[in-house]
Amino acid sequence: MSLEPRTGSGYPEPYQSRVLPREKRALGDAFGLTTIGINHTVLPPGKESSMRHWHSHEEEFIYVLSGEVVLRTDAGEQPLTAGMCVGFPLGTGDAHQLVNRSAGPAVYLEISNRDARDCACYPDVDLQYHGAQAAVKFTRKDGSGF
Amino acid sequence: MSLEPRTGSGYPEPYQSRVLPREKRALGDAFGLTTIGINHTVLPPGKESSMRHWHSHEEEFIYVLSGEVVLRTDAGEQPLTAGMCVGFPLGTGDAHQLVNRSAGPAVYLEISNRDARDCACYPDVDLQYHGAQAAVKFTRKDGSGF
Repeated sequence: MSLEPRTGSGYPEPYQSRVLPREKRALGDAFGLTTIGINHTVLPPGKESSMRHWHSHEEEFIYVLSGEVVLRTDAGEQPLTAGMCVGFPLGTGDAHQLVNRSAGPAVYLEISNRDARDCACYPDVDLQYHGAQAAVKFTRKDGSGF
Repeated sequence: MSLEPRTGSGYPEPYQSRVLPREKRALGDAFGLTTIGINHTVLPPGKESSMRHWHSHEEEFIYVLSGEVVLRTDAGEQPLTAGMCVGFPLGTGDAHQLVNRSAGPAVYLEISNRDARDCACYPDVDLQYHGAQAAVKFTRKDGSGF
């Protein structure tokens, strides 16, 4: 099976340019899975996986397949290379992101449960995610649009 | 972090010997995840991942990291090598297993949601799985014990 990547992002600017170009292949969707999401993601040099965030109702797990990313959390920074992994329980308030500071692409699996109630908080930027079912998914923290 | 593998199996004989020795490292548990399970599994030559089965409430996803396994479903057999993956929606009635017919170990990630209601059916053998919370997890199909 050949799977076309998703190359977009729901982020407004100036955040979208910090994560794109980026390729995500929805492996779980391809097999009809609905309770878990599994993305195969290729992150180019200089790009961020997302803004630093934490989820209200979805856990996340990252498994690095090749290349190197830097994990950023409240605890600081840590490089992750092939065969390394990290999990993020929900609702912790400790935000995370991956940054590719290397010279080549980084490839990793992103795994999460799916919960329609999920929102995400972004402590470093004026952004709020209101969930997959919200009419306006991303706003500023005061609820105003971009 | 160094993670000790789980080397046991809940299966009664003669099924346990068909899957062991086998190493599973519970990566998701190590990070405190509760809604999804992620195992890093090493399956030696000649061994089966499980008896061929399907789940009532849990989806599964396999991503092969190294080596080769043969996927067996109602559709037949298909080899899976590094970088290949397959997902199994819940409740399909199409049972699956992986068999290592190669000369070396096969290594893969096993990913699933977690649902306390989950049971598993085994069309090829006289075995029934009654779920993680059942007092007797495995019985014969008529409910009798081993």
